[in-house]
Amino acid sequence: MKLSALFLACGMAASGLAQAFDEPTRTTAAELRDQALRGSGAYDTIASLTTEVGPRLAGSEGDKKAVAWAVKMLKAKGFDRVWTEPVRFPAWTRSQESAEILAPFPQKLAITALGHSEGTPAGGIAAEVVRYESLEALQADTSGRAKGKIVFIDRRMERARDGGGYGPVVAARTKGVNAAADKGALALVIRSVGTDSDRFPHTGVSHYDEKQTTRIPAAALSNPDADLLARVLGYGKPTRLKLKLDVANGPEVETANVIAEIRGREKPEEVVLLGAHLDSWDLGTGALDDGAGVAIVSQAGALIGALPQAPKRTIRVVLFANEETGLVGAKAYNSLHKDELKHHIIGAESDFGAGPIYRLSSTVPDALLPALDGIVKELAPLGISRGDNTSSGGPDMRPMQGDGMPVAELAQDGTDYFDFHHTANDTLDKVNPKHLDQNVAAYVVFAYLMAQH
Amino acid sequence: MKLSALFLACGMAASGLAQAFDEPTRTTAAELRDQALRGSGAYDTIASLTTEVGPRLAGSEGDKKAVAWAVKMLKAKGFDRVWTEPVRFPAWTRSQESAEILAPFPQKLAITALGHSEGTPAGGIAAEVVRYESLEALQADTSGRAKGKIVFIDRRMERARDGGGYGPVVAARTKGVNAAADKGALALVIRSVGTDSDRFPHTGVSHYDEKQTTRIPAAALSNPDADLLARVLGYGKPTRLKLKLDVANGPEVETANVIAEIRGREKPEEVVLLGAHLDSWDLGTGALDDGAGVAIVSQAGALIGALPQAPKRTIRVVLFANEETGLVGAKAYNSLHKDELKHHIIGAESDFGAGPIYRLSSTVPDALLPALDGIVKELAPLGISRGDNTSSGGPDMRPMQGDGMPVAELAQDGTDYFDFHHTANDTLDKVNPKHLDQNVAAYVVFAYLMAQH
Repeated sequence: MKLSALFLACGMAASGLAQAFDEPTRTTAAELRDQALRGSGAYDTIASLTTEVGPRLAGSEGDKKAVAWAVKMLKAKGFDRVWTEPVRFPAWTRSQESAEILAPFPQKLAITALGHSEGTPAGGIAAEVVRYESLEALQADTSGRAKGKIVFIDRRMERARDGGGYGPVVAARTKGVNAAADKGALALVIRSVGTDSDRFPHTGVSHYDEKQTTRIPAAALSNPDADLLARVLGYGKPTRLKLKLDVANGPEVETANVIAEIRGREKPEEVVLLGAHLDSWDLGTGALDDGAGVAIVSQAGALIGALPQAPKRTIRVVLFANEETGLVGAKAYNSLHKDELKHHIIGAESDFGAGPIYRLSSTVPDALLPALDGIVKELAPLGISRGDNTSSGGPDMRPMQGDGMPVAELAQDGTDYFDFHHTANDTLDKVNPKHLDQNVAAYVVFAYLMAQH
Repeated sequence: MKLSALFLACGMAASGLAQAFDEPTRTTAAELRDQALRGSGAYDTIASLTTEVGPRLAGSEGDKKAVAWAVKMLKAKGFDRVWTEPVRFPAWTRSQESAEILAPFPQKLAITALGHSEGTPAGGIAAEVVRYESLEALQADTSGRAKGKIVFIDRRMERARDGGGYGPVVAARTKGVNAAADKGALALVIRSVGTDSDRFPHTGVSHYDEKQTTRIPAAALSNPDADLLARVLGYGKPTRLKLKLDVANGPEVETANVIAEIRGREKPEEVVLLGAHLDSWDLGTGALDDGAGVAIVSQAGALIGALPQAPKRTIRVVLFANEETGLVGAKAYNSLHKDELKHHIIGAESDFGAGPIYRLSSTVPDALLPALDGIVKELAPLGISRGDNTSSGGPDMRPMQGDGMPVAELAQDGTDYFDFHHTANDTLDKVNPKHLDQNVAAYVVFAYLMAQH
């Protein structure tokens, strides 16, 4: 009898795994998946955003247009309810920027200011350059050689499917400005955090420490220009650089998170949260970052909304404001929805371009694991396998994840994502429509089954 | 006896083919080839030019520096004689350029003026855009719809190993300005003549007809920006563009062809001419166009110069001035050396980047064919086969070829050449050192054997 009880338990466990979802639910999920694969329409959404709005730096005119565009787009896709929630922050603006080697070999360089950078004086800053191999090398330098100079951090990012090369290098961009200021430097110039070898500098946010009283300008050189500067320095002659950045940390502005829902029919207060961010950097048209995410989660929600019967739980799509300069929209959402957060059963953000999804990872309580395993079964035809249970849900999920919301990561192939990330070259032609449809297929299965389980 | 005479003739013909060059000559050629393959040093020459000089638009300060650099470089490589010959022309200069869609969807565009373009008024030109699929479509249009508008020629270049996609499209760049002016347009904008999908506009020369009294400004959009403009036009709403080009056709300037020789030991007056051009466009550093050619022919000559014994004939390396805006240096050379031209036994220019050579073509009299066949035998280990006898010798060979000089074409794989051609992205990192060495190996064999035959 003990043995038969064990068999029974095993059988139940196995059956639990095999049948996390009932047959009609699985059939509907498979139909949604195949419908997306046949042509999700998401590409047209990115085309519309990048053509009609284009660059949409948080707080800019383009950002305002993007909010209006998103409201209209989500309504047109048939969501039950579409609304905005205000987000406020001090704007940052870019007007002009240039750099040139003055000596020993005068040449113009392709450069871009980092977000939040202070501007240079109108006449620019001209000074000798000192090179460091990494942020850590700069931080460790006690020689005083950076004093009165322009610091050049020359660390190259490595290419990887999961974007794993980003983390070790991006600290030079986010924190380098403090380290350089601490050493008495006049300005910071970094090698772009990017895997391409094109003359596009990669912008991205930098953060002055609150205790940082000396706020020096900071900018990134394209990889070929960083190569050139390194070669020039290799001649061993004093190398002078001139840097002109007409940028400013401006006044407080208001923009908005744009939110849309497919209301659940049984537990409408319980929410499956799909996120992407509506803002982009100003250099490109933000097709990959994050037009793709906007299109993927909006279209996934719309496909569920078009079903004859809504799922049990609510699907909520949030197009976050101002991800790029500090997750400002995500923090605002987290703050405003604090009381509902316990009903956010899971959240996932699409913010890594338009490469195909290959893995579903998560950070969820054990009770949700069978549902995720069941979802992975329906995702298998898309080439998606199960990852571990220690993942991030994407940048804009971090505030909610930090407050206990379970998250999933539908990990995309990011092999070439950092070729275009934060550059002028992030444009519609970089989006592969077939890969995009695969993303919608994965998100629609994930969202529908999470709302049904 | 008739039969034996036939056998004898056949035998002689076969032997003639098999032994266009004697054994020591072939051994030396093979040694030169293998020496180049082991590491020709040509990459360092391009690195030096692109680092120490950089952009060198004909007539600019960079061009002056390039001439001084080339004289020094060729002397350092051990040529017997290095000299310059003056070349004069009206300079063309670029200061600022920008474009933006004003309506219906305001966006900035990546644009660059075409060489010889007139500037716009300081406030720019703002007008409605009319699109044509090709130069031919514009020329054929008798509707009057281009009058008072900005003409947009939107023809895409096809990728091909031999660059064959260039010819059909480049006419829009060189001649479009006349066709647009003839139709009463205010300005011409073309889709870049390039195979990439990056936000680098491709510059290049345009030619006003002499009879053209209305000289309108002309510029090229990057391919993604041309895509965008075409998409915006696809909405069917009046589309207004603003174009600001601060460029000018300036005063007469003087620069120089830079020439170096390895004097022949038996027939020094007979010349094997190796060409490349020293000038570049101003946007990039001209690593591929034509730093590669400069390095390849200079290094090929230098390897021959380092032999214990000079070849029978003279090897002359000419680094031509101002190829880009109209073969000005080549015409000057042709004019100055008219009387010697009959002793130029062959000429070949390297001006197609740094891709590997795959074919030797020619336009030579029959008497030279056996020598070329013999050369191809020595080139076979490099993966080079024999092409036909109707080829060009490269742009700067055209004036001399037109006056009867035999020419050869060491055809390079140009599959990706037009991804970078005439853009800011033509930089050192695009050069593959191994491919470059293969080029030097081919040129040194070709030049040595032509000088020995």
